Amino acid sequence: MGSNTVVNRHKERGRYDTGTIYGILDGSLICHVAFSIDGLPYNMPMIPVRIDNTLYLHTSARSRFYETLSKGTDVCIAATLLDGLVLAKSAYNSSMNYRSTMVFGKLAPVTDPEEKLKAAHQLTEKIAGGRWADCRQPSESELRATGFLKIPIATFSSKVREGPPTDNPEDLSLGYWSGVIPLCISRGEPVTSPNDEGRTTLPEYLQD
Amino acid sequence: MGSNTVVNRHKERGRYDTGTIYGILDGSLICHVAFSIDGLPYNMPMIPVRIDNTLYLHTSARSRFYETLSKGTDVCIAATLLDGLVLAKSAYNSSMNYRSTMVFGKLAPVTDPEEKLKAAHQLTEKIAGGRWADCRQPSESELRATGFLKIPIATFSSKVREGPPTDNPEDLSLGYWSGVIPLCISRGEPVTSPNDEGRTTLPEYLQD
Repeated sequence: MGSNTVVNRHKERGRYDTGTIYGILDGSLICHVAFSIDGLPYNMPMIPVRIDNTLYLHTSARSRFYETLSKGTDVCIAATLLDGLVLAKSAYNSSMNYRSTMVFGKLAPVTDPEEKLKAAHQLTEKIAGGRWADCRQPSESELRATGFLKIPIATFSSKVREGPPTDNPEDLSLGYWSGVIPLCISRGEPVTSPNDEGRTTLPEYLQD
Repeated sequence: MGSNTVVNRHKERGRYDTGTIYGILDGSLICHVAFSIDGLPYNMPMIPVRIDNTLYLHTSARSRFYETLSKGTDVCIAATLLDGLVLAKSAYNSSMNYRSTMVFGKLAPVTDPEEKLKAAHQLTEKIAGGRWADCRQPSESELRATGFLKIPIATFSSKVREGPPTDNPEDLSLGYWSGVIPLCISRGEPVTSPNDEGRTTLPEYLQD
């Protein structure tokens, strides 16, 4: 892996299986796409959508970003899920529980309208399972206006930290609490659009 | 801003004030640092720590990453906070409420031990307010082993989307629910380290 020339810390945290990376990509509502233009780095937030072994991203088909990335620019797509704050007895040994991944390669534009529709379907269902059948699906011109990009999940590297803090043996007798504070993303009470109040009711698939 | 050559969509979402970027960096437990080595992009997750107008990051002082970035490599540091899922009546107009930022420039190593200690203090307090006074603070050798890097918050660009969906007027009569599902990061019930059970009690500042 090219990444290993840089990502050489905590080798025991490395994961190279598809199960781990699929879990990270499927669980992430955002990823960051690193690439260079004229030697200067950029880092765009995008929504990662996975179908089988392909990662899809989307933006406006008219954006400069889409134009640049469609040409086969090298990218490094990073996604990180935070699972917990790890408070060791020392500040130094404190850490975070996380699952992170980087996908390396080149994005390619999705040109087949059916493949675009499949990616739009997967994206919509990722945001809220059940939504695709309960919204107006994209028109042909909306699909044309959406620039989907794809990359095979082939060259990648994941890292996972889990479990309790690793305290120095000589720190164990210190009176400071040591442990993990779990983190997760919570969905709050849905807020109906002002334009929609009284017109519709909250669908069942959004009621949890 | 150099970024505007690429980030040219949704100009109305652009924010260039320090209040917005400070809020994003302070609210983010993770950021992603994009840079290139031999023309190939990398994208490392790091914890952003802000003091006044300076952004601090840290890693092992012995890592290849620290070595590379200490040399003044160009970086683009991205942080994104997700505030809500925006479900429009159409899949196409659906979106996310977010606050995202990119900081451009070159990182410099922090060599002054007092400045390192200040950054470690701020980092620890960011993770849990009250923790610095209630943990073993870094020794001299631990500070030496920690590679802090810093960058002025000078060249940056933020984007914010907030509020309800923007539905097409002709979609408003459709029977699909339209609105926002708020998102936030929740902290769960603290889990005491197995090595620490029965030895200490959960401090008050972690009890919310």
